[in-house]
Amino acid sequence: MTTDPTRDLLPEGLEDRLPQSAAAVARIQRAVLDVMRSHGYDRVRPPLIEFEASMASRMDGLSTRQMFRFVDPKSLRTLALRSDITVQVGRIAATGLSGAARPLRLCYAGQVARIAGDMLDPRREELQLGAELVGADSVAAAGEVVEVAIEALEAAGATGVSVDFTLPDLVDTLADGPLPLDAATREAVRRELDAKDAGGLVEAGGEAYLPLIHAAGAFDEAVERLDAIDGAGVLDSRIAGLKEIAERVRGRARLTLDPSERHGFAYQSWLGFTLYADGVRGALGRGGTYRIGGSDEAATGFSLYPEGLVEAVKADEDLGRRLFLPLGHDREAAARLRSEGWRTVAALSEADEAAELGCSHRLDGAEAISVRS
Amino acid sequence: MTTDPTRDLLPEGLEDRLPQSAAAVARIQRAVLDVMRSHGYDRVRPPLIEFEASMASRMDGLSTRQMFRFVDPKSLRTLALRSDITVQVGRIAATGLSGAARPLRLCYAGQVARIAGDMLDPRREELQLGAELVGADSVAAAGEVVEVAIEALEAAGATGVSVDFTLPDLVDTLADGPLPLDAATREAVRRELDAKDAGGLVEAGGEAYLPLIHAAGAFDEAVERLDAIDGAGVLDSRIAGLKEIAERVRGRARLTLDPSERHGFAYQSWLGFTLYADGVRGALGRGGTYRIGGSDEAATGFSLYPEGLVEAVKADEDLGRRLFLPLGHDREAAARLRSEGWRTVAALSEADEAAELGCSHRLDGAEAISVRS
Repeated sequence: MTTDPTRDLLPEGLEDRLPQSAAAVARIQRAVLDVMRSHGYDRVRPPLIEFEASMASRMDGLSTRQMFRFVDPKSLRTLALRSDITVQVGRIAATGLSGAARPLRLCYAGQVARIAGDMLDPRREELQLGAELVGADSVAAAGEVVEVAIEALEAAGATGVSVDFTLPDLVDTLADGPLPLDAATREAVRRELDAKDAGGLVEAGGEAYLPLIHAAGAFDEAVERLDAIDGAGVLDSRIAGLKEIAERVRGRARLTLDPSERHGFAYQSWLGFTLYADGVRGALGRGGTYRIGGSDEAATGFSLYPEGLVEAVKADEDLGRRLFLPLGHDREAAARLRSEGWRTVAALSEADEAAELGCSHRLDGAEAISVRS
Repeated sequence: MTTDPTRDLLPEGLEDRLPQSAAAVARIQRAVLDVMRSHGYDRVRPPLIEFEASMASRMDGLSTRQMFRFVDPKSLRTLALRSDITVQVGRIAATGLSGAARPLRLCYAGQVARIAGDMLDPRREELQLGAELVGADSVAAAGEVVEVAIEALEAAGATGVSVDFTLPDLVDTLADGPLPLDAATREAVRRELDAKDAGGLVEAGGEAYLPLIHAAGAFDEAVERLDAIDGAGVLDSRIAGLKEIAERVRGRARLTLDPSERHGFAYQSWLGFTLYADGVRGALGRGGTYRIGGSDEAATGFSLYPEGLVEAVKADEDLGRRLFLPLGHDREAAARLRSEGWRTVAALSEADEAAELGCSHRLDGAEAISVRS
């Protein structure tokens, strides 16, 4: 056999998860799925691969350029490895589940990949978990989704969860109403607001939008500053909705508002939010209201990307109590102890030793006894 | 937005799993992982994608031709979407976990893909679950692995599990010893044995191997017929090993022996086995002893491909009891009922109705009451 000198290398941005880290991922995934399930979300499983054209047609504003693409020898069409599951769940809602009653609650968990990582996160593959409430983008829908997202993160072991709200169509709403802007200026204003550049904003002709830069921060103060903006009357329903959602989750999460932040979600409608937790670098997830690409059905959902949480907890992840089973052990006793939560490690030869195999206990007769003297 | 007329189509051999089927997959995956974990197998998570050359160098006899391949814009090297996780776990054992104590017990669960399905199974993506016992290919190791595989299938809901044993290096062992064959004849004999073609076997010069065709069937009789073959002395340790393993799992599974069957596993050494269950078309999994490609370390393991079981059980898969929560419901009562196993479905508007949303019960005060009159 010829040996490739780079045989042991993985491509940049791809990695093996070893037991501690894999156990953390598995525990987090179960906890999040269990919370979503308990709130009535049914899991669906779309495939890893789809036609690129099909994926693109439902992404409306996003592109498939970030996806691994390749020609299908069967159909001779271009396939893409998914970089997002939300789009696939939207497709399922619009096709296989088009006849299911609305609101339709769906959830998912799976790996996604992209051809390039970024400065903040070089990973090119990660786990995406999420829930979509299809057929509703009301305040009640958004309140439920935010609450489920927080509960899911807590169940996964995140502490100090915070939610940063935004109003993705804020500039359009103001520009179509009390603070008119032409199309070119509108785009420039959005850009300067994203950059939080007050000077640039004035220069771009967006002076009237200056208060938005200051209407960001702790939720209660920020929402009042937003309400005080000239022409904020057109925002009344959004502001009332934000307050209702905040009221519902108050005390369970730190709440902030950054009304003109766009998070790069081209398909969000009136509400967006980003999720953070203590000790985790970067966002753990995001969500909001949107229209499903293609069917244009209203929906609300969130996606979690728990890699940051895994990094934060993996060193302390508990792999469970291990019980060594000597040669000729009592198999019924071993089965009983497994059913009580022990992980058994059976000796295969006289050479196997409890401590070396990570066992704190050994089976002695029908009892687990400590191997530490 | 332009609409692709094939937007709703998935590529051949790829499918969405809707709630019933996705729930069956999730339940089966958890059950199998829990059994492997309880027997001391630690989960690892290799990436979906690797360098093609790296994957190929560890596959020793298998090829990457069945894999989706594409050029990595980062490294400009060819990547492959995995078609098998066993090879990746072997790599992990030989690299990241090379220093871990042996025997090393690892397990995994994940999606694999291949560019072409086959007549028996057109699927191009499926779930693979399995366990690898690294550092041992003894009878004790094989006995443990067969037992864990059976227990995992039972926990997943399979009934009438059967195990078909084989001896992958049987022809080589006989041909190197009492029933000599030159290399060309050896390959022809293997081929005719696979085809169970007695005439072809004689024509190929393998008359002495005829009894192997008849040494297949119910385990106890077949193993005696194998033992009676001229020159079977070289098989003594294998036959004793088979009997010991059969003794260990007798009563838990139907056992058969097909000593010259190869299952297409080029990398198996002395023992191979295939797993079946009642009501499931085709094999549910396979396993055996082998040498890890590259490091040449002894190992024993099994892989399950539960799609057939999912098909068999999905119509009856239980999605759980759903409890409708009317507007203004008691949130603490709802949380308590969720913790007791209920799945709650909250009304978002007056239009939402319990029965239409699949709820058998509704929350009335703090109690769940039936909505069926």
